[in-house]
Amino acid sequence: MRSHYCGQVTEALIGQQVTLCGWVNRRRDLGGLIFIDIRDRDGLVQVVFDPDQKDMFAVAEKLRQEFCIRLQGTVRARPDGQVNKDMASGAVEINATELEIISRAEPLPIDFNQQVSEEQRLRFRYLDLRRPQMSHNLQFRAKVTSLVRRFFDEQGFLDIETPMLTRATPEGARDYLVPSRTHKGKFFALPQSPQLFKQLLMMSGFDRYYQIVKCFRDEDLRADRQPEFTQIDIETSFMSADQVMAVTEKMTRQLFSELLQVELGEFPRMTWHEAMRRFGSDKPDLRNPLELVDVADLLKEVEFKVFSGPANDANGRVAALKVPGKAEAISRKNIDEYTNFVGIYGAKGLAWLKVKDLSAGREGIQSPVLKFIPDDALQGILERTEAANGDIIFFGADKSTVVAEALGALRLKVGQEHGFVSDEWRPLWVVDFPMFEAYEGGLAALHHPFTAPVNVTAEELKANPAEALSNAYDMVLNGVEVGGGSVRIHENQMQQAVFGILGIEPDEAQEKFGFLLEALKYGTPPHAGLAFGLDRLVMLMVGASSIRDVIAFPKTTTAACVLTDAPGVANTAALDDLGIDLKALPGTDDSE
Amino acid sequence: MRSHYCGQVTEALIGQQVTLCGWVNRRRDLGGLIFIDIRDRDGLVQVVFDPDQKDMFAVAEKLRQEFCIRLQGTVRARPDGQVNKDMASGAVEINATELEIISRAEPLPIDFNQQVSEEQRLRFRYLDLRRPQMSHNLQFRAKVTSLVRRFFDEQGFLDIETPMLTRATPEGARDYLVPSRTHKGKFFALPQSPQLFKQLLMMSGFDRYYQIVKCFRDEDLRADRQPEFTQIDIETSFMSADQVMAVTEKMTRQLFSELLQVELGEFPRMTWHEAMRRFGSDKPDLRNPLELVDVADLLKEVEFKVFSGPANDANGRVAALKVPGKAEAISRKNIDEYTNFVGIYGAKGLAWLKVKDLSAGREGIQSPVLKFIPDDALQGILERTEAANGDIIFFGADKSTVVAEALGALRLKVGQEHGFVSDEWRPLWVVDFPMFEAYEGGLAALHHPFTAPVNVTAEELKANPAEALSNAYDMVLNGVEVGGGSVRIHENQMQQAVFGILGIEPDEAQEKFGFLLEALKYGTPPHAGLAFGLDRLVMLMVGASSIRDVIAFPKTTTAACVLTDAPGVANTAALDDLGIDLKALPGTDDSE
Repeated sequence: MRSHYCGQVTEALIGQQVTLCGWVNRRRDLGGLIFIDIRDRDGLVQVVFDPDQKDMFAVAEKLRQEFCIRLQGTVRARPDGQVNKDMASGAVEINATELEIISRAEPLPIDFNQQVSEEQRLRFRYLDLRRPQMSHNLQFRAKVTSLVRRFFDEQGFLDIETPMLTRATPEGARDYLVPSRTHKGKFFALPQSPQLFKQLLMMSGFDRYYQIVKCFRDEDLRADRQPEFTQIDIETSFMSADQVMAVTEKMTRQLFSELLQVELGEFPRMTWHEAMRRFGSDKPDLRNPLELVDVADLLKEVEFKVFSGPANDANGRVAALKVPGKAEAISRKNIDEYTNFVGIYGAKGLAWLKVKDLSAGREGIQSPVLKFIPDDALQGILERTEAANGDIIFFGADKSTVVAEALGALRLKVGQEHGFVSDEWRPLWVVDFPMFEAYEGGLAALHHPFTAPVNVTAEELKANPAEALSNAYDMVLNGVEVGGGSVRIHENQMQQAVFGILGIEPDEAQEKFGFLLEALKYGTPPHAGLAFGLDRLVMLMVGASSIRDVIAFPKTTTAACVLTDAPGVANTAALDDLGIDLKALPGTDDSE
Repeated sequence: MRSHYCGQVTEALIGQQVTLCGWVNRRRDLGGLIFIDIRDRDGLVQVVFDPDQKDMFAVAEKLRQEFCIRLQGTVRARPDGQVNKDMASGAVEINATELEIISRAEPLPIDFNQQVSEEQRLRFRYLDLRRPQMSHNLQFRAKVTSLVRRFFDEQGFLDIETPMLTRATPEGARDYLVPSRTHKGKFFALPQSPQLFKQLLMMSGFDRYYQIVKCFRDEDLRADRQPEFTQIDIETSFMSADQVMAVTEKMTRQLFSELLQVELGEFPRMTWHEAMRRFGSDKPDLRNPLELVDVADLLKEVEFKVFSGPANDANGRVAALKVPGKAEAISRKNIDEYTNFVGIYGAKGLAWLKVKDLSAGREGIQSPVLKFIPDDALQGILERTEAANGDIIFFGADKSTVVAEALGALRLKVGQEHGFVSDEWRPLWVVDFPMFEAYEGGLAALHHPFTAPVNVTAEELKANPAEALSNAYDMVLNGVEVGGGSVRIHENQMQQAVFGILGIEPDEAQEKFGFLLEALKYGTPPHAGLAFGLDRLVMLMVGASSIRDVIAFPKTTTAACVLTDAPGVANTAALDDLGIDLKALPGTDDSE
């Protein structure tokens, strides 16, 4: 039905006849002529209808925004002065010779030239997706998946599908349950990840697996979460952590090189402890040069308990965050706001200090806590933070976790607001995570319970679990965790030891993971893998502010689809068939 | 950890040192030496351990079936007389120099040299998948998906993901429901197909879409059905039915050419009416030369009501199925069995006629119904079926649908049992389906309610729906429907007309499909698409007898996973959270 996509019509085609299909992006009537931009997925091109061609012009007069049309015409250079350098086709226009209206459009329910609410965009998603930016985002996403698949195919990875109707797993976040009709009263769960199935595939000898796969989490949504999300999931046998990192890093470099013409170079590695110490985060944004500096040792002896308490507590931490040159720019009002902000992360206050004039001694320092800081401690802080006139220093003093979270978040906020964040790509690997973290009186797995520890036997791990490091690795890019993985446990005894440390009783372990423990008995190869969050990776690459902008039909923040009005009411017969009753009446959901 | 896959070790490597990782497939101790076959996903190779290397030999003595090992050695030619032509590596063996046991295996719970039940295979799927045939099936499947994606990428199709948590659709088979936590009392449905979303993508201007996507149907399972199955799903704008058929046919030809070295050639087309007339099926297996021959016109006047009744009924049919040369081979006992068999399809009996000696007139014919067939009718039947001595002819006389189903099924059964089915690939397109079929007093869509009719206006369709043909096309291969698609309705009025004909009231249409009817108002492009059943296609290509053999972790025929024991019992707190109660007690499912 067409000879070219609209975006393909450039100077190279001048003098040629083309046939196009697309939508009326805009119509202007000027000097007796009708001008439209016709749009398809590839771009826009200007079309001119001349009144001399009466029949065609009569049809053109009917054209309105978003009519779907087909036309023929000759490509010609635009007159001087009418060239539009912002359009790929801006130097040419089409002198139409034939026009057919394929499908009319009523006046649009939303006007994309105005600010449109997220709700309206999702309600009329089919129109929202016609916008060039959204069309670009999804076309870019298709390029990403295509390149990822090509990459793994070439590396000998096998694309193998794992089930969507699975057994519930206790991976922390909530499962979506699916009632079974054949087995009334029982439920499948939609997978939070294909973790155990991909491990079983390694036990089956498939050696290198990948899949781009939907995963599900029924949790309260944030800007960058969706109930269903997509993972680039890989697993390998007989490969070390270094080799898995090498191959996935290569994939990432290739994506950026081919699709964004950006050379990422080799990714630096940083231990989890260093990341927490310097950036207060296990996913540090290296574009931001601000860093946390530990000063507890300087403040152990001060009388001010806010400092000396955490400074003398094994689980405490006192750290400084210097913001260079912003003593003036950051007002008392800003500081009050930051104090509230760190409160979200559990910080009970936000001490600060402005360096007015280093040569003036204590007189040159402005700070509500100055009187609590003796000379030598002050001197130590200023030296260690390499403070200069005009700097402001914030302090965090609390449990280590609170200090890291609060100052880590403040670092990002101040860095963003005061222009410290550079415009570049800064990937890194975070490695050497602790195996476990304290959680409600016990220990929880920092990654998941199938992650192997570094260089310990099952007995050694049981003797001192809190000290153990895991053989896990996260790929972090500009402060976003885009991928995470680990070497897996491939020995029955080690897996049982980890379950025991996590407080999973042998009976429970058998009931939930009996098939895994059994499978580990029959010659399991050493295996390791990684999963990328595809949505987040694409979001970063296209510069979108929400993963909703890189998903064709996302859910709202209340996990609903306003386009199709899902979830919906199920009919009673269907529920009877599943053996379930509703506790709440349908329609009461809005009251929650 | 390795230099080669096992299957790569051939004569080309003689004299070289190799390092392999894999599993002990078999161990034999012979003449003081230990022989094993080591196996990985790529194949097997024989390894010899020499007692002269004492330390290594001591390790080799511990080897048992399915131990996971790593070894080094030198490739050498096997001694004359020990070459195994059935193995790719059968001309060589590895003289081991180093051996490491990576992971031991307990004695296997199943013995693959014995007959193993399907249940046991699924229970220990990770071991079942180690078998070379199963490993091959899944590796072949990965090649199919890789090639399909490459093909559509090159043709400018965009891989776009559609949601898994969707609104329930009334597509006939049952939805899997997913209770919503945020919207208590409401349910998502897992998609039976991405049909409406891919149509919306066309309305968004994406123009060419494909996806390899999981779909779900909660229905009673048969040998070739699974609750979750995978579709190769495509949709295009501005393309005709012919163009969609051309591109998908090209894809299929390329799959067979590249992966099986089979050239399928151009696919013939057959109308639905011709397929039903000649083969009694809308998915005729053209490898089977047996055909139905209509003889109603010859039997209108006979007194025998079994024939004359259907012969004179507009909805009736009388057809003959000649089986050449099998009058002897098919005994009375066989005929009784066939009579029972056609009974499954509603046939009340199975008349037959054996041609003993054509030159002997009626004397040369043996048939229990001979006395009911006058001379001229008999002559007509023999001529029209081109009967020869030694042939047997079966008759179907009933409603058209019963005759087609019964004789169509008998044709397949007899063809299979008596060696008529050739060993070749016989694809075709079935086209020109009726739009509707009679169903419980009303009309049902033969494809789905979004299929466009051929060359009628909405008014004409409403006036005479039973006569309308749909712009649908099925790709059939060796009697299996591997793909089906259609041109879609792209006009609001036509879509409303079809809903009306299907007995969907305007209110109901609005409630269920309001978003589609709304979307059809804003410049919808003409669009058409197709979906392949990936599981069945791969099953055909690898020659498996069940789709379970081309799916890594399939469900049993009762829609359960015996490996992970899913579905399972949900905890009460989770159900409270979803606002649902169980009607039946857990554990009562076995009584059903």
